[in-house]
Amino acid sequence: MSDRYIVIMAGGKGERFWPASRLKRPKHLLPIVGDKPMLTQTVDRLGSLIPIENIFVITNSEQVEGVHEVCPNLPEANVVAEPVGRDTAAAVGLAMLLVKRQNPEATLAMLPADAFIKNSEAFQGALDVAFKAAEASANLVTIGIQPTEPATGYGYINRGEVCDTIEGREVFKVKQFKEKPDLETAKEYLASGEYFWNAGMFVWSVAAIEGALSKYTPVLKTGLDEIESGLVAGKELKDLLEELYPTLEKISVDFAIMEKADNVVTMASTFDWDDVGAWPAIERHFPKDESGNVCDGLAVFEDSSDNIVVGSNGHLVGLVGVEGLIVVHTKDATLVCKKDEAQKIKALVKGLGASGDYKDLL
Amino acid sequence: MSDRYIVIMAGGKGERFWPASRLKRPKHLLPIVGDKPMLTQTVDRLGSLIPIENIFVITNSEQVEGVHEVCPNLPEANVVAEPVGRDTAAAVGLAMLLVKRQNPEATLAMLPADAFIKNSEAFQGALDVAFKAAEASANLVTIGIQPTEPATGYGYINRGEVCDTIEGREVFKVKQFKEKPDLETAKEYLASGEYFWNAGMFVWSVAAIEGALSKYTPVLKTGLDEIESGLVAGKELKDLLEELYPTLEKISVDFAIMEKADNVVTMASTFDWDDVGAWPAIERHFPKDESGNVCDGLAVFEDSSDNIVVGSNGHLVGLVGVEGLIVVHTKDATLVCKKDEAQKIKALVKGLGASGDYKDLL
Repeated sequence: MSDRYIVIMAGGKGERFWPASRLKRPKHLLPIVGDKPMLTQTVDRLGSLIPIENIFVITNSEQVEGVHEVCPNLPEANVVAEPVGRDTAAAVGLAMLLVKRQNPEATLAMLPADAFIKNSEAFQGALDVAFKAAEASANLVTIGIQPTEPATGYGYINRGEVCDTIEGREVFKVKQFKEKPDLETAKEYLASGEYFWNAGMFVWSVAAIEGALSKYTPVLKTGLDEIESGLVAGKELKDLLEELYPTLEKISVDFAIMEKADNVVTMASTFDWDDVGAWPAIERHFPKDESGNVCDGLAVFEDSSDNIVVGSNGHLVGLVGVEGLIVVHTKDATLVCKKDEAQKIKALVKGLGASGDYKDLL
Repeated sequence: MSDRYIVIMAGGKGERFWPASRLKRPKHLLPIVGDKPMLTQTVDRLGSLIPIENIFVITNSEQVEGVHEVCPNLPEANVVAEPVGRDTAAAVGLAMLLVKRQNPEATLAMLPADAFIKNSEAFQGALDVAFKAAEASANLVTIGIQPTEPATGYGYINRGEVCDTIEGREVFKVKQFKEKPDLETAKEYLASGEYFWNAGMFVWSVAAIEGALSKYTPVLKTGLDEIESGLVAGKELKDLLEELYPTLEKISVDFAIMEKADNVVTMASTFDWDDVGAWPAIERHFPKDESGNVCDGLAVFEDSSDNIVVGSNGHLVGLVGVEGLIVVHTKDATLVCKKDEAQKIKALVKGLGASGDYKDLL
């Protein structure tokens, strides 16, 4: 039995990809970029590095069915639904419990479900080395992404000195986790060469993360211990989660652990990476016409430039005299959004939810 | 038998209302403004002024079926298809022939199929007086529209002195028909108070219009005479049109007759009128939200202003961070167009036609 496990975090609501994404079918269940759903790509990308029975997906009850649909080979018990979202530290704790039940000696990697990485081999290579780093120590290992622009949409990792070298790859002590910076700060980070993007990819042993939870978030850990006791007593995980998960402390793993722990190390990614965070990101993945328009579907453009069109089912979108728009057509809803206002799509979706009239469109 | 006839011109291709309008279902067969198709409204608006058997519709072969659908009470023989479009003078000639066959003593009004007039009573009143003017003389009567703004999208009628008064309404000699002016000229027209918009509404006796055709477009008249001889010889109208209509001189009635004839008179409209020429016009007919958005269908707006949304079948359109757009959703195509670029929609439709890939969407 392998000592390596993967826990994929697949709980997003996908509001930023409305109307293509819905509560039951968020971004990671859709082929936003690439020809398979993002989660399917995330599982496939692991190749033979990890046996399928060692791959867990943490999602929510709305999406369990969708996860099984897009990952039919995943054992049913490996898809676990949070009854409510309690932020990332609780999810990290749940992941630890799931893996510990099977193998207390295990090392686990936590991966987001919906990042886009084309070069699977390079990714597997980097992940393998990160596993080795976590297996050889009680460190909390994070894979940093080499930044290519002063992005303000990501957290950053300030790396310190080299503390190890594994298979020719440098492992750095982490000085600090930094929240999303403003543009000027991001430029300084980029210029210094000492920062990675935080892509939310962590590798650690059960013992290491359990120790960190105890040390830095004892309240949360007490709640997790209660769930574990229930499991040991033979209770069903589902029932325990229903009862206890909503009572867990709600805090992000960055804030609860990564920004505090003194045993965090990082390594540079050696693969392409795109978190495809919102509609404007998809233009990086499709060819542009001579006017800078990008189209995933059927579109015609008349005197229009720099637009993104995402269509469906042979429906034609015609653009006339417009620029810098995102147009997304689906069977029952269409979005027209200014590219640089895409962060407001969330507000629109929240408004739909609040109105109560558009339940089917959420 | 009434001596009054109506001939409604319903031959437009409706490109400016794509994607709602298609070749087989152009603007006049759609309820663009109001709750019935524009042509149905045009027929209903006549009320009891004209018996239904005296109402003719000139259309094209693509639209005959649609005309019967929206005007089921119209006798089948009263819907006549031009085999090809030969501009308005030929259509006027054809109208004259249709009416003359039934009643050489008749007076006929020619009306566009797709104008929007809310006040039917005022319209009937004006039309009744126009009929009286045409019945009492050999004049070519046109109903002018009182301009409300320096529009550059209409032809203008320069009225001269009052030559008659019928039921308290002044009848003016027409000095000149003017083509669509530039803005400065339009402003001068408006300021002078001596101009009407030309709405293409004409009333004349069979004798008057036949005389004008003979005098001002003898070549066209010779062609029309040939069709008439065929009818007298018992041939089918349809066969005669197939054979001879394509050979008729192609010229507009304004250019061929109205700009030349010295017996043209005009009267002021006493009714509201909107030709609803293109998508931007529809915002005059729907309530605006506090941000100036107009919606005929289902839409939600997030930080968006001055947009027009036309939906269909419960499909939701969500706008985020945009202004001054026209968004029209239909089952198989969606348009996103800048309001002040709406004249380019025609080019988009022509492009679709030229590509050959989108036959169903024309």
